[in-house]
Amino acid sequence: MARPGGEREIIARIRQAAGSSGDLLVGIGDDCAVYKTPPDRVSLATTDTMVEGVHFDLAWHPPLELGRKAASVNISDIAAMGGQPRFALLSLALTSTLGSQWLDAFMSGFLAVLAEHGVVLIGGDTVQSGHESVLSVTVIGEMVEAELLTRKGAQPGDVVLVSGFLGEAAAGLALCRLGLAHKPAWQTLVVAHLNPVPLVALGRVLAASGLVHAMQDLSDGLATDLAHICAESGVGAVVTADKIPLSPVLRQAAETCGQSPLDWAFAGGEDYQLLFTAGEQQVAALSSMVREKTGQELFAVGRIVEGQGVFLEEAGQRREISYRGYEHFR
Amino acid sequence: MARPGGEREIIARIRQAAGSSGDLLVGIGDDCAVYKTPPDRVSLATTDTMVEGVHFDLAWHPPLELGRKAASVNISDIAAMGGQPRFALLSLALTSTLGSQWLDAFMSGFLAVLAEHGVVLIGGDTVQSGHESVLSVTVIGEMVEAELLTRKGAQPGDVVLVSGFLGEAAAGLALCRLGLAHKPAWQTLVVAHLNPVPLVALGRVLAASGLVHAMQDLSDGLATDLAHICAESGVGAVVTADKIPLSPVLRQAAETCGQSPLDWAFAGGEDYQLLFTAGEQQVAALSSMVREKTGQELFAVGRIVEGQGVFLEEAGQRREISYRGYEHFR
Repeated sequence: MARPGGEREIIARIRQAAGSSGDLLVGIGDDCAVYKTPPDRVSLATTDTMVEGVHFDLAWHPPLELGRKAASVNISDIAAMGGQPRFALLSLALTSTLGSQWLDAFMSGFLAVLAEHGVVLIGGDTVQSGHESVLSVTVIGEMVEAELLTRKGAQPGDVVLVSGFLGEAAAGLALCRLGLAHKPAWQTLVVAHLNPVPLVALGRVLAASGLVHAMQDLSDGLATDLAHICAESGVGAVVTADKIPLSPVLRQAAETCGQSPLDWAFAGGEDYQLLFTAGEQQVAALSSMVREKTGQELFAVGRIVEGQGVFLEEAGQRREISYRGYEHFR
Repeated sequence: MARPGGEREIIARIRQAAGSSGDLLVGIGDDCAVYKTPPDRVSLATTDTMVEGVHFDLAWHPPLELGRKAASVNISDIAAMGGQPRFALLSLALTSTLGSQWLDAFMSGFLAVLAEHGVVLIGGDTVQSGHESVLSVTVIGEMVEAELLTRKGAQPGDVVLVSGFLGEAAAGLALCRLGLAHKPAWQTLVVAHLNPVPLVALGRVLAASGLVHAMQDLSDGLATDLAHICAESGVGAVVTADKIPLSPVLRQAAETCGQSPLDWAFAGGEDYQLLFTAGEQQVAALSSMVREKTGQELFAVGRIVEGQGVFLEEAGQRREISYRGYEHFR
């Protein structure tokens, strides 16, 4: 199962499939990639590393979906600022047990997501690893500076919004771990874990609206990600348990797995929904604009307040959940 | 020896030490870094991954020097195009055996090299790994498009030049493997392996001279790296064995280790000297200019020819060495 031809052949195959762009002067095959940024744009850069056995399990993660996810989670970070992803660099440290069929499937998933978002693969590195494979991706994007949405800027009185159901990916992971991933009933959840979708178009709409104060993507769970926005903005937040959007199938899965659906939403992470705040007066306008342009529903889950920390309100009680899971506070 | 405080504390410590730049709008601590590129510049991007047990050995690579090397080998790729490095992203997948003291020393080496070259750390990722640590670095640079030096452009008749002694890093690695790294006599070689120096200033001088046709850095050994230039330029090359610059201490080390010094030069790699070609009429002017501006000597090691492949001339005989080591052809 060794990869035939070594690094040079792998790079030649990847180079052929990498695509191109008018702004790209030098792509794969030189010491650096070289590209132009339009003079009215700022550049965005993000990097994310996934380790076998920590962030993914080859026992249930097919290579095509893993390739898609490696691209998507990085593109999601560009979406989280409201930017347009443009270029990607991919570093693969692969164990010798992964053959060329695995690599071809991985690359076809990775490059498919890039193509869906107009992103070109411009460089990378392919090296041998001993015991576990490590996937490291850098994505470079661009946008108009005035539209930039950071984690700073949330203001007391803002409504906290999310762009879709939470906890789905965590539920999917739990089902994979229990060996229940094949059941048709759970497909939405399993796919949310294996193949999350980066919300680039939604991020662009929200950034261009001028109505959003702070934004990030939900990669670590609501309790941690909202705590980041609060810390950077110098504010606190209160979220309301019964406003968290939980799908019916998530509730069923929680029963099957003996888990709390709110714990998946608060501590599960990897949903890659967008989390953002906006002034109360603007929420209705923002929601109709988003519905019209992307077909997506927004969910108001809480409120930005003076002070610090993220608090959960449930059945009349309030407890802090900053950077933590739901279960830690029960 | 666990790293106290987890990822958030590590990131907070790194964020404080990361430095800043006028062109950086958003640094560590958001979904992406955001920066401006001057309108008259193109951007360069490169990424490199180092795997424990494959690219470095913690038994003899002190963390400070490893941190320096992780930065330097990526900055060298920017130097190889003649560019100015600006920003870095660092992904660390670390085993639990590496404690916070190790990480502090690694980061101080990494950030020292960045500071020496005016590079700012703008993002990254810190994750747990199981059996081996994996370091993945992306560096972003910039330069004037007209000065860009790629691997394309070598022309028949060009002289092939290198910027210093070859084989030093490979000799240093061999000495480390034999447990001889501590001997004062070998320090130049051991340091060449543990802590290579990226030749940014030299790369800038060569790019600005307008006299260089093709360039790259020597990361995989002369036989492979010159083969890259030849393949991209659609030419061949002939190098002359007795023109390869080998230091006296390298020859001594080769005797001690029972190795061929030319094999280290051709197949050893990791010297991070610059390899480039220029028209014969320009070599004298280029050499004086470089001597004056950087104090460095250039060495002419061969010639670009029509055809393809890299050939070695030694004792009146010529044999192909493209992508190979010296020993493979004895």
